Amino acid sequence: MKHTISLLVENKPGVLARIAGLFSGKGYNIDSITEGKTETQGISRMTIITHGDDRVVDQITKQLNRLIDVLKVNDLTEVDFVNRELALIKVAAEGPTRSDVIQVANIFQAKIIDLSTKTLTLEVTGPDKKIEAVIAMLKPFGIREVARTGTVAMVREFQSGNQAKMSLE
Amino acid sequence: MKHTISLLVENKPGVLARIAGLFSGKGYNIDSITEGKTETQGISRMTIITHGDDRVVDQITKQLNRLIDVLKVNDLTEVDFVNRELALIKVAAEGPTRSDVIQVANIFQAKIIDLSTKTLTLEVTGPDKKIEAVIAMLKPFGIREVARTGTVAMVREFQSGNQAKMSLE
Repeated sequence: MKHTISLLVENKPGVLARIAGLFSGKGYNIDSITEGKTETQGISRMTIITHGDDRVVDQITKQLNRLIDVLKVNDLTEVDFVNRELALIKVAAEGPTRSDVIQVANIFQAKIIDLSTKTLTLEVTGPDKKIEAVIAMLKPFGIREVARTGTVAMVREFQSGNQAKMSLE
Repeated sequence: MKHTISLLVENKPGVLARIAGLFSGKGYNIDSITEGKTETQGISRMTIITHGDDRVVDQITKQLNRLIDVLKVNDLTEVDFVNRELALIKVAAEGPTRSDVIQVANIFQAKIIDLSTKTLTLEVTGPDKKIEAVIAMLKPFGIREVARTGTVAMVREFQSGNQAKMSLE
């Protein structure tokens, strides 16, 4: 099962190595990781996506909680959350195909942020499924390079039931 | 000095722990890290931002190059590149301040992706300086939560000189 784990950590040397070590110690792969600053100086938020047995992931989150530089661990799997990812995609766009690429970009509300006579570079954001869809649509043109941030997540204000329908997605 | 290091790695357990260990072994902090899938199955791209002495960072990149699961290391510090980050920002927005928050969102082309009667959650993308600016503008309203992906970077097609002016930023 896919797990989305949100962590608040002290931004110090060695913290990431210890966290990554907990996962690899169990033979668990981290599918995606993001680490960025928060509203508080010296504190970072990490979002880790992993696949695996619920019981093992539960063990890992317990061990994460015990690390001195980890301030908070939240497995978002059971709650309703918004998730977003950003991708930069450099795609071949020469001659007549150029306008086709631009059309795909417009449909997905992607921004063109760099160009050459032979390529266009798009910035696209959304849930990971949208990113996958854009990449699939651009593949026939020839993708030169993809750089994805990995997923960042935040608990929704409205949880479950009818209220969930108020989400803006 | 700030260094932006782009890595292509095999997506296997333990790779992240070894890479993070190289930095912490030198007492170096990773300011931000992103890891996401690429156009090739099983290969991930990482973007690491660190601050430090050029010589030490040079040593680290050489050691990264020697890791068996690291396929390519690129220190982008000397080249022209586009960089982007995504942030989710949950901000207090009750009563009359709500329209002020929406105004700030519009100015920075941020999307409102979740709301409650007391808060708005914005999605904003851009170079890290833009993200800092949005956070600074929203601070007076009361920031509840920030989740940032960290920076993702890609070499520009047009390098240096006059051609750099063709960039779309």
